[in-house]
Amino acid sequence: MKIAVLGGTGDQGLGIVIRFIQAGEEVIIGSRKAEKAVAAVEKVKELLEKDDIPNLSGMANEDAADKGDILILTVPLAAQMPTLKSIADFAEGKILLDATVPLDTVAGGGPTRYVDLWEGSAAERSAAVLKKKNVKVVSAFNNISNSHLMNFNEDIDCDCLISGDDNESKKIAAELIEKIPGVRCIDCGPLDKARIVEKITPLLIGLNIKYRSHYGGLRITGINFDK
Amino acid sequence: MKIAVLGGTGDQGLGIVIRFIQAGEEVIIGSRKAEKAVAAVEKVKELLEKDDIPNLSGMANEDAADKGDILILTVPLAAQMPTLKSIADFAEGKILLDATVPLDTVAGGGPTRYVDLWEGSAAERSAAVLKKKNVKVVSAFNNISNSHLMNFNEDIDCDCLISGDDNESKKIAAELIEKIPGVRCIDCGPLDKARIVEKITPLLIGLNIKYRSHYGGLRITGINFDK
Repeated sequence: MKIAVLGGTGDQGLGIVIRFIQAGEEVIIGSRKAEKAVAAVEKVKELLEKDDIPNLSGMANEDAADKGDILILTVPLAAQMPTLKSIADFAEGKILLDATVPLDTVAGGGPTRYVDLWEGSAAERSAAVLKKKNVKVVSAFNNISNSHLMNFNEDIDCDCLISGDDNESKKIAAELIEKIPGVRCIDCGPLDKARIVEKITPLLIGLNIKYRSHYGGLRITGINFDK
Repeated sequence: MKIAVLGGTGDQGLGIVIRFIQAGEEVIIGSRKAEKAVAAVEKVKELLEKDDIPNLSGMANEDAADKGDILILTVPLAAQMPTLKSIADFAEGKILLDATVPLDTVAGGGPTRYVDLWEGSAAERSAAVLKKKNVKVVSAFNNISNSHLMNFNEDIDCDCLISGDDNESKKIAAELIEKIPGVRCIDCGPLDKARIVEKITPLLIGLNIKYRSHYGGLRITGINFDK
């Protein structure tokens, strides 16, 4: 299963790329410009101290979406709509993991506040934009900090809360995501649950700032998920 | 320090009452009707299998607010405004811990969804209603389930995320709340952070329903709060 990380040149995208490379998956970095994606591949090689990573490539978002079997969107909110529109024709029937968080930074505010989106959540916005393409949108990765992802020699001490309207896609997503050491994936229900999960991120960013950390995350307690 | 639990006859209120009685605090149960508060005292005696609990009493909300040094509001959203208005004259200058969660049940919906309040959160609504009374509102207890509180022979495996605009009040609140075994209190910042914390509750209720639990909670990870 080829994973295409769209907008995969920022810390969040790169972190996810590295984690899946470490897990032995085939990964494509997508970027608005192919050159940036290729440069990101070089950066990953440097970070992992490898001359060659045969299971990693870089290309424009459109090509990455075309070649990928499962797509992961890791762009700031302002880039979400244009990126989705650019890849829509290549996403038909695929699973899209949406990591977009509606931070108030999009409107000139701070990262410790959210903005309310018309659709309810960034993930539902993705689903709306891609409605005609039968794309299965799964909200994921929202609460795992970029630094946490990029700290790739350490396990991640954070649950990944996912939401989505297609159970089969969520199962595939969870199986994939749990290849990242330390991450437990929790199905929170239908896609509209992303309205809550996305809002937890500015809370965690606020805690990171207040308590001088970069690794704020969360674990759900009190529930046996293995039943 | 006398603790008055206003609307303390439901499971959430009773659970908090019992936890503070166990911690040796002096507690007053308040209810709309004094008789109900007195009956709740009897219920606590039964539950704790004690003939007498000298540090527990029951009375009307107004009297409880008058006698209490620190007030805890544990009512459903629909009862929040009337309760606050009834106790406002007796709350002058005191600390009010607000446990109210804006669940969609108030509008005939389910407990796995929230409603948006004009003030942003239930806690900010309390602050607005009590503005002229110099009450220090601290949002607290939102994410600890009623069953968890009522399961009083077990420690609570959940953080208590608090928010408020007065740091001294938050310190007093945190010291008090951490007398409940297992609970770690985390200051999330100004009162408007309750907009996020309150919304986590319907997510946890949804997880409880989905995974057949009653004890869903959360722990913040990745941050050293002792620094």
